[in-house]
Amino acid sequence: MAEKSPNNNTAGKPIRCRAAIARIPGEPLVIEEVLVAAPKPREVRIKIICTSVCPVDVTFWRSEHPPAIFPRILGHEAVGVVESVGEGVHEVVEGDTVIPIFLPDCGECTDCLSAKSNLCSKLSFSISPWIGREETSRFTDINGETLYHFLFVSSFSEYTVVDIAHVTKIDPQTPPDRACLFTCGVAAGLGAAFKRANVEAGTSVAIFGLGAIGLAVAEGARLCGAKKIIGVDVNPDKFEIGKKFGVTDFVNSRNCGDKPVSEIIIEMTDGGADYCFECVGSTTLVHEAYASCRKAWGKTVVMGAEPGAMLTFKSYEVLDKGKTLMGALFGGLKPKSDIPILIKRYMNKELQLDEFVTHEVNFNDINKAFGLLLEGKSLRCVIWMNK
Amino acid sequence: MAEKSPNNNTAGKPIRCRAAIARIPGEPLVIEEVLVAAPKPREVRIKIICTSVCPVDVTFWRSEHPPAIFPRILGHEAVGVVESVGEGVHEVVEGDTVIPIFLPDCGECTDCLSAKSNLCSKLSFSISPWIGREETSRFTDINGETLYHFLFVSSFSEYTVVDIAHVTKIDPQTPPDRACLFTCGVAAGLGAAFKRANVEAGTSVAIFGLGAIGLAVAEGARLCGAKKIIGVDVNPDKFEIGKKFGVTDFVNSRNCGDKPVSEIIIEMTDGGADYCFECVGSTTLVHEAYASCRKAWGKTVVMGAEPGAMLTFKSYEVLDKGKTLMGALFGGLKPKSDIPILIKRYMNKELQLDEFVTHEVNFNDINKAFGLLLEGKSLRCVIWMNK
Ligand SMILES: [Zn+2]
Ligand SMILES: [Zn+2]
Ligand SMILES: [Zn+2]
Ligand SMILES: [Zn+2]
Repeated sequence: MAEKSPNNNTAGKPIRCRAAIARIPGEPLVIEEVLVAAPKPREVRIKIICTSVCPVDVTFWRSEHPPAIFPRILGHEAVGVVESVGEGVHEVVEGDTVIPIFLPDCGECTDCLSAKSNLCSKLSFSISPWIGREETSRFTDINGETLYHFLFVSSFSEYTVVDIAHVTKIDPQTPPDRACLFTCGVAAGLGAAFKRANVEAGTSVAIFGLGAIGLAVAEGARLCGAKKIIGVDVNPDKFEIGKKFGVTDFVNSRNCGDKPVSEIIIEMTDGGADYCFECVGSTTLVHEAYASCRKAWGKTVVMGAEPGAMLTFKSYEVLDKGKTLMGALFGGLKPKSDIPILIKRYMNKELQLDEFVTHEVNFNDINKAFGLLLEGKSLRCVIWMNK
Repeated sequence: MAEKSPNNNTAGKPIRCRAAIARIPGEPLVIEEVLVAAPKPREVRIKIICTSVCPVDVTFWRSEHPPAIFPRILGHEAVGVVESVGEGVHEVVEGDTVIPIFLPDCGECTDCLSAKSNLCSKLSFSISPWIGREETSRFTDINGETLYHFLFVSSFSEYTVVDIAHVTKIDPQTPPDRACLFTCGVAAGLGAAFKRANVEAGTSVAIFGLGAIGLAVAEGARLCGAKKIIGVDVNPDKFEIGKKFGVTDFVNSRNCGDKPVSEIIIEMTDGGADYCFECVGSTTLVHEAYASCRKAWGKTVVMGAEPGAMLTFKSYEVLDKGKTLMGALFGGLKPKSDIPILIKRYMNKELQLDEFVTHEVNFNDINKAFGLLLEGKSLRCVIWMNK
């Protein structure tokens, strides 16, 4: 049974509200009335305040192949307030400000109990169409048709239901249009620099791809005291925005002629960058990043992946150059323990994140937010549910 | 001009002595008289006390293809006494006990000055047929024919000449038949565990290949306090010898049926070994090691390589599992600073290395030492130059 508070008339019952539904691959989202079921045991129903659009939403909106599935409620970068909780939820109560996060943090398994892992071994990460321990949907449309979840979050809805393992309680003073940045790419970029690579002061960093993740890596590296932060992108406009986040040098990979980018970076850093971050999910760029990396102590951090692709390295080079290659899902951050720390650093004005929000729209204009991202005009467009 | 001491009648002049020459691929070495030229500037001429045979010697003795080259003086694991030094050598003097090491340590470049690198950027590592700054030979046979060097050492000779960047001065109290162990595989294995992977107490370790390198990894991991040390080999006898160096569990990769070794190791360690070491140079084993490694914090250390081979990893797995892959040439050890520390730990009886020396022969019987290694009967056979 859901725990009801005396002032809450909705707890325990389905809520009828508006959601943006992806019905046909690549077609505009349609705002419709939906039914959001009450949270089951260990679940939380959240009233979304605002949500942002991320390239991952766009990918699964356009894709015609599994794990894309329709009709679905996309969205996974959001902040909201707990409307009600299911049985057995003690971590949050009605009225708490929370951010749902795609990565689970069950708090019980070896990984969740270890400071060294953010990869829960009880609940696995996937592009899941379901939520909860029995893997079902909490959404139906007005005709009773099941609507699929996305990344355990589905924030393009006025209300959503999320497993408690995917809920992080945050300081309610956090501005909502900044809080939602801590749920995905921006947090991942910061974490990759701070935590996974643990960038040392005075070092050189090369960032492949200056989207939100790459720029957040730059911001993280800047805060760690990196001396040279090289941004690599095909879009020269990225250098201007990059400067705001600490990028000191720019390489336009389209203007390198016959020279591989790695050769240019090796020249710029007198032997290779101390840290390389691949932020696009391109196999070619992982290889370039690894090649750009300083021998002996260089670290290459892989932050994206191409479905079905293989990374290949010369056996002798792996041995003789002594470089390190590491993967970093969500930048190595633990959703429940690391994110509140990052938010505190933002509230203390150590972290500069305001420039990540380039646009904002009302929920009714959600398709505009998709358009801005597709045209490469926005880093993050915040969608306000009721403003 | 070579610096002459009043008691040294050989300094500055060629020395005529005995060396074991590899003339034809795979044919027994031939002990002949050779001329060893005086050391040129920044070179040291060493009177070899003893030397051991390593699988790398066997590889380049049998191989018919470059970088194999003939006639050559093989041998690269030795200890000796400085006979004379060339101009500009101040680090060692006549009479010092030294070990020549295949890996250079120039003491001047960014890498040699950094505690984080053992990959000199001034003098590169190779299977070089030459020595010295002008890359020439110091050996000629009795007919004046040039004899090639091997790995900058060529210790299968009563005297050899080595660049000072390849010379480490050691405690003269070190027993010679133990000192020579610190020049190659045994030191590399210890370093990989101690320094490169930095094995934590209470962890699990999987070692692929229980030759001298793998057994030294076990000894290093044991000293670091690893709880479970799994040895993987096709030879069941290796488990008995492995126990002496701390191996606690054994997997015979020939007896796994259809199950990949990685699956067995994941079961034995409840999720994967915290550290995996590939000690053979087999591409297949690197892949098995990486697959056997614990997600999130697992480290796979690559200690060998297959010429021309590629290592391939699934892009998604690199990202989602968050594992670390790192190369370790000579275990990440710096020849001049780390080796004396390891020797001190041996002299303090912390390190147990005696079991590595399974055989000893007189120089005249050098081909027996090759035979013992080929038959898998010896870990290290020490060859005494004059005993
Ligand atoms: Zn996202
Ligand atoms: Zn967990
Ligand atoms: Zn060797
Ligand atoms: Zn050097």
